[in-house]
Amino acid sequence: MVRIAVIGAGRIGAVHAATVARHPGAELRLVCDPAGDAAERLAAEHGARATRDIADVYGAEDVDAVIIGSPTPLHVEQIIGSVGAGKAVLCEKPVDLDLGRVDECIAAITGQEHRVMIGFNRRFDPTFAEIHARVRHGEIGPLEQLTIVSRDPAPPPTEYVAVSGGIFRDMTIHDLDTARFFLGEIVEVSAVGQRLDPAFADLADYDAAVTTLVSADGAVATVVNSRHCATGYDQRLEAFGPRGSLEAVNHTATAVRHSSAAHSSAAGPYLNFFLQRYAEAYSLELSHFIDAVREGRPASPTLHDGRAALVLADAATRSATTGERVLLSSTATTRSHS
Amino acid sequence: MVRIAVIGAGRIGAVHAATVARHPGAELRLVCDPAGDAAERLAAEHGARATRDIADVYGAEDVDAVIIGSPTPLHVEQIIGSVGAGKAVLCEKPVDLDLGRVDECIAAITGQEHRVMIGFNRRFDPTFAEIHARVRHGEIGPLEQLTIVSRDPAPPPTEYVAVSGGIFRDMTIHDLDTARFFLGEIVEVSAVGQRLDPAFADLADYDAAVTTLVSADGAVATVVNSRHCATGYDQRLEAFGPRGSLEAVNHTATAVRHSSAAHSSAAGPYLNFFLQRYAEAYSLELSHFIDAVREGRPASPTLHDGRAALVLADAATRSATTGERVLLSSTATTRSHS
Amino acid sequence: MVRIAVIGAGRIGAVHAATVARHPGAELRLVCDPAGDAAERLAAEHGARATRDIADVYGAEDVDAVIIGSPTPLHVEQIIGSVGAGKAVLCEKPVDLDLGRVDECIAAITGQEHRVMIGFNRRFDPTFAEIHARVRHGEIGPLEQLTIVSRDPAPPPTEYVAVSGGIFRDMTIHDLDTARFFLGEIVEVSAVGQRLDPAFADLADYDAAVTTLVSADGAVATVVNSRHCATGYDQRLEAFGPRGSLEAVNHTATAVRHSSAAHSSAAGPYLNFFLQRYAEAYSLELSHFIDAVREGRPASPTLHDGRAALVLADAATRSATTGERVLLSSTATTRSHS
Amino acid sequence: MVRIAVIGAGRIGAVHAATVARHPGAELRLVCDPAGDAAERLAAEHGARATRDIADVYGAEDVDAVIIGSPTPLHVEQIIGSVGAGKAVLCEKPVDLDLGRVDECIAAITGQEHRVMIGFNRRFDPTFAEIHARVRHGEIGPLEQLTIVSRDPAPPPTEYVAVSGGIFRDMTIHDLDTARFFLGEIVEVSAVGQRLDPAFADLADYDAAVTTLVSADGAVATVVNSRHCATGYDQRLEAFGPRGSLEAVNHTATAVRHSSAAHSSAAGPYLNFFLQRYAEAYSLELSHFIDAVREGRPASPTLHDGRAALVLADAATRSATTGERVLLSSTATTRSHS
Repeated sequence: MVRIAVIGAGRIGAVHAATVARHPGAELRLVCDPAGDAAERLAAEHGARATRDIADVYGAEDVDAVIIGSPTPLHVEQIIGSVGAGKAVLCEKPVDLDLGRVDECIAAITGQEHRVMIGFNRRFDPTFAEIHARVRHGEIGPLEQLTIVSRDPAPPPTEYVAVSGGIFRDMTIHDLDTARFFLGEIVEVSAVGQRLDPAFADLADYDAAVTTLVSADGAVATVVNSRHCATGYDQRLEAFGPRGSLEAVNHTATAVRHSSAAHSSAAGPYLNFFLQRYAEAYSLELSHFIDAVREGRPASPTLHDGRAALVLADAATRSATTGERVLLSSTATTRSHS
Repeated sequence: MVRIAVIGAGRIGAVHAATVARHPGAELRLVCDPAGDAAERLAAEHGARATRDIADVYGAEDVDAVIIGSPTPLHVEQIIGSVGAGKAVLCEKPVDLDLGRVDECIAAITGQEHRVMIGFNRRFDPTFAEIHARVRHGEIGPLEQLTIVSRDPAPPPTEYVAVSGGIFRDMTIHDLDTARFFLGEIVEVSAVGQRLDPAFADLADYDAAVTTLVSADGAVATVVNSRHCATGYDQRLEAFGPRGSLEAVNHTATAVRHSSAAHSSAAGPYLNFFLQRYAEAYSLELSHFIDAVREGRPASPTLHDGRAALVLADAATRSATTGERVLLSSTATTRSHS
Repeated sequence: MVRIAVIGAGRIGAVHAATVARHPGAELRLVCDPAGDAAERLAAEHGARATRDIADVYGAEDVDAVIIGSPTPLHVEQIIGSVGAGKAVLCEKPVDLDLGRVDECIAAITGQEHRVMIGFNRRFDPTFAEIHARVRHGEIGPLEQLTIVSRDPAPPPTEYVAVSGGIFRDMTIHDLDTARFFLGEIVEVSAVGQRLDPAFADLADYDAAVTTLVSADGAVATVVNSRHCATGYDQRLEAFGPRGSLEAVNHTATAVRHSSAAHSSAAGPYLNFFLQRYAEAYSLELSHFIDAVREGRPASPTLHDGRAALVLADAATRSATTGERVLLSSTATTRSHS
Repeated sequence: MVRIAVIGAGRIGAVHAATVARHPGAELRLVCDPAGDAAERLAAEHGARATRDIADVYGAEDVDAVIIGSPTPLHVEQIIGSVGAGKAVLCEKPVDLDLGRVDECIAAITGQEHRVMIGFNRRFDPTFAEIHARVRHGEIGPLEQLTIVSRDPAPPPTEYVAVSGGIFRDMTIHDLDTARFFLGEIVEVSAVGQRLDPAFADLADYDAAVTTLVSADGAVATVVNSRHCATGYDQRLEAFGPRGSLEAVNHTATAVRHSSAAHSSAAGPYLNFFLQRYAEAYSLELSHFIDAVREGRPASPTLHDGRAALVLADAATRSATTGERVLLSSTATTRSHS
C-alpha cells in the first residue's frame, strides 16, 4: 500500500485525492494547503489528516509519496523538499516557468531524479496511448507527420494569463510533450502567435498559435492551438506514416447523434474541459505512479521530460516573437524511455 | 448505337431522356406523351422527334428500345405493344398494381420476357451494389439479417395516395426488391402498418410500416418505412453475417461537418429525394439496359422480378390488414440471376 | 449511509459489490453465496462479512437493502424473503421465467412492491437515457418508430441456453423493456425466430430474432437480435419522430480511427460485452437504487416493469412459434412512471 | 453557344474536352497537340477538328475560348497568343514556374487580364465552396485558423519532379490558393520541408512539407502536405472561428461501412487522385468559365490569383531553404473578388 500526501487542495488536488482514495493500492494520508480550511475539507472527504504546513508533509513518517498540485512557482522547492525527505513525487506540469530553476531542481536532487514523475497526463489517455503503442509497433511505418489540434473551450482569467508564462509554456507545453512522446528528439522549432480575442490585445501573450517541430530523424509535428473553442475542449491528433495513419477523434458526453431538418448525424458538443476529457488519463497516470513507487521503478514522464517540454516552449516563444526558426542542440530534448 | 424512344415526358421521363442524350452508346430518337406539348418540349431539348400517339412509337423503324415512364395503369399495354413491335423495353416499377394484369402481360409476351427490364434502380446504386457484390463474394459469410431503413422526405399528395395501390405496392416495393436482391426466395411476410399523419386517418392506406421477410434459407430482412422524414430522403441498409457486416450510410449534398456550441461534427441533411439520391443509379441502370440491348443479352431485373416484388407487396398488405404472417409457395419469388 | 448485502458472488454480484464499495452513500456489509468460498473471497476484497446461508441476509440488522444477483430460479423467493425482512431490493432481470411465479411474488409482497427495483440497467446508460429524456422533452415530436439492434458477441454455452427460457426471455427481454421505456403500453407483438448457428439446430430455441411491437398510441418498435456478432457487442437504437431522430451509435474502447491502403477512418471493434458496454449504466442504476432507499422513494424500473417485459417475451415466443400476431390486453404492460 | 479549342490532348485536356462536349452551353471545335495523333484521337471522340499547329488555334474564327492544358513552360506564350487572337482563356495552374515570366505575361496582355481564368479547381469543389460561402456569410464568425491536409496518393516520376519547380510550386500551390481564397491577403510565410522517400534524397526537392501563412488580419492557415498517402488522395480542411468550425471530411467511392472482428464502421480508402476527387469541381469550374465568356464577365480565379499563389510558393520555398519567416509586402497577394 502506497501512502500518499497531496499538496494543494484546489481543483487538481481534489481530483488526485479522489483518485487516490479509490485506488486499491494507495491510501490518502495527508492533505496540505496553506489557505484557510481547504486542506481540512478535502482531507475530511477522504478520511485523511490535514495541515497548512508543508514541513508536516516532509516530516510525515507514514507518507511514501507526494503529489504536488500547488501553484507552479512552488513546484521546485516542494520537489526538492519532498525528495530530500525520501518521498517519491508526482508533480503537475510545468516543473517551473524558468529553465534555470528547473536546472537548479535537477542539480539539487542529483541521483534521485528517477523518483520524480511529471504529470503530462495525456500520455496516459487511452486513445493517445493506443495510437502511440501502434505507431511504436510499426503499424503505419516510421512516423512522418504528427498533427495536433488542441483548443481550450474558453480563455482563463486575464490575471491568470499574466502569470501563466505565456501560451507556449502554459498550454502548448502539453502538446510539446505529446510531440516529444511521439517524435523523440526535437531539433527545430518554429511558431506563429495570434492575438484574436480583444482581451489579449494588451497582454504580452497570444491566445492562439501554430507551432511546427522537426525531429532529429526528420519527422514534423504541427500543433494548432487556441484559447477558445465554441464546441468545447478540442483535443485531436493524427499520426501519419507511409503505411497509413492513426487519428484520435474527439470525445463527446454520450454516443447520441441527432438528425433534424437542419442537419443529420450531429454529435453533441465536445466534453467541456480537461477534467472531463482526461478523467481516465488522470486515473491511469496515478496508477502508473503508484505502481512505480511500489516496485521501486522510475516513473515516466520524468523530470527531464518536464525540462525538455519547457525547452521547446521557450523556443516556441522565441520563434513567435522573432520570426526565426530556433535550432536546438541535439541533446536538449532527448526522449525518455517510456 | 441503340436508338431509343421515351414514353412519358414527366419527371422521370425527363431524367431518362437526359441520361440517354449523354450516353455515348445511345441516341434519343422519339418522345411520346399524349398531354399537350410535353413531348415536344422534351424532344426539342435533346434534338429528338415528338409524338402524342403511342402507335408512332411501335411503328418507328429507327427505334430499337423503349423506356416506359408513363402512369402505372398504362405499363402493361405499352410493354405488350412495344415488345410486339420488336422493341426492347425498360419499364419503370411497378409493372402494375394488379398481379392478374402482370400475369396477363407475361402471358402476352411469352418467349420475349427477356426483352423487358424493370426499373428497380436501387440495384444499381454504387453503395448498395458494392455491398451486394461483397456479400455474394462471401466477405461476411452467409447473409443472416438485412435491415433496411427507407423513408421519404414528405408524403405524396392525397390524390396520388388514393390511386397508389397503398404504401407496400407504391413505396415498400423498392425495398422488397432489394430484399429479394440480397436474400433470394422469400417464403414468409409479416407487416405492421401505421397511420401517423392525420391526413392518412381517412385513407385506406398507411403512411409508415415495418415489414419482416424470411427467405427460403432462413435469412430475415426487416424494412422500416415512413412517408415522412424531417432530415430528407432516408436510405440506409445493413447486411449482417457471421463474419461481419456491411452498412450503407446515407448521402448528404457535400462532405461538410459543422461544429458549434450546439453540436459537433454535424453533417448536412440527407439529399432531398430519389432523383438526387439515386441520380447515379438511374444512369448506371440505363447503361446496363443499353449494353444488354446492344449485345442481345437479357437485362435484369426482369419482368419476373417485377412480378415477385408485387407478390411480396400483396402479401405485406394482407399481413398488415389481417395480422397474419403470410406464407408464400416456394416458387413465387425466386431470385433472378443477376 | 445505505448498508447493503449482495446475494450471489458470481460475475454480476462482483460488479455490484465493487460498485457499492466505491459508492460514497453505501456500504457493503454482507455477501451471501452458497457455493464454496465464493462469498468469502468477494467479501474479503471489500471488507464485508460473508455467509453461505440466505437466512443470515434476512436476519442481518445492519443491512438495509439487498442486491439479488443469484440464478434466476431463486429470485422470487429471495425477493419475498428480503422484503419480508424489511429490506429494499434490487433484483437482476428477469424476475422469473414463469409469469405465474412473478404474479405469486407480487401477491406475496402486496403493498411493498415499491421497495423492489428490477435491474434493467440499459435505462441508465447515459446515451439511451439522454435519448429518452430528449424524446420525452418533445425534441423529435411524438415518437413514431424505435429501431433497436442488439447483438451479443457470442452465444452462451448450450447448457445455459437450455435453461435460459429462450432468446426472448433471456436476451430480448432487455430490448423489450427498452421498448416499453420509450413507447409505454404495448398492444401487439409479432416475432420471427432464426436458427443460424448449427449448435442451435437441435435446441428448442432461436439464436436470432426480429420482434415488432405496436404501442397503444400506434408507435412501432422493431428489435433485431442475434446471439453472435463478429465485431463485438452490438448495441444501437434509433428513435424517430416527425421532427427528427435521435440515434445511439455504438461504443468502442477508444476514439482511434485507422486508415491504410485497405480502408479509411476505421474504428476499433465494439466493446466486447455488457460488463464493458454498460459499466457506467450499472453504476448509475445502483446510485438510483441507493438514493431511492435513502429517501424512502419507490425505485424504477419496478416489479411491474419486470412482469410486463416478461409478458412481452412470452408473447414474442408465442408469435415466433405460431406465426400469429399476439394482441395484449391494454393493461398488461402499462408503463411505469420513470 | 461558346465555341472552344483545347490545347493539350493529355490527361487533363481529355477531361476538359469531355466536359465541354457534355456542356449544353459549349461546343468543342478544335483540339491542338503537337505530338503524334493525340489531337486527332481526342478530337474524333467528340466530333471536333484536330491540329498539331498552335497557329491554327489562334486563327480559328469559330473558336471563342481556349482551354490551355499544355505543359507549364508553354502556358505564358499560349495565354499571350490566345488573348492576342481575341480568345478568352482558361489556363491550368501554375501560370508559370517563374514569377518574372508571369509578370511578362500580365504586361503583354494589359487591359485584357480579365479574359484569363486560372484553373484552381478546388475553389469549385462543392464541399470547399460550401464552407467558403458559410464562412463568408459569418456562420463561424471571423475566420481565425484554416487547417489544410493535402496529400497525394503517390509521388510523380522523378523526371517529373526534376522539372516541377518543387513541391511548393507544383503541389502546395493549390493549397496556397485555397488559403488566399479563405484568408485574403497573406503577409507572412513559414515552411518546413521533409525528404521522406529515399527517392527524394538526391533531388533538390522535398516530398512533404508544412507551411504556415499569416493573413493581413491575423488569421493563420496551416498546410500539411505529403507526396504519398497509403489510403488515397487525402484532401481535408477545417475552417475555425469564434462561433464554430466547418470541416471538409474526405471522399470515398461509396457510402459503405464495413465491420468485422478487426474493426467497426470502416470506410473504404479515399478516392485515388484528383481526377476522381475533383471531377465535379472540374465540371463546375468549366461552367463558371463558359458562363463568364458568354456574358462577357471576368472569370475568377484570375491571372493575378495565379501570380499571387506563385508568390506564396516562392516564399515557402525560400522559407523552407533558409529557415526564415518570409514577410510579404501588403499588395503582393491581395484576394481577388470572388
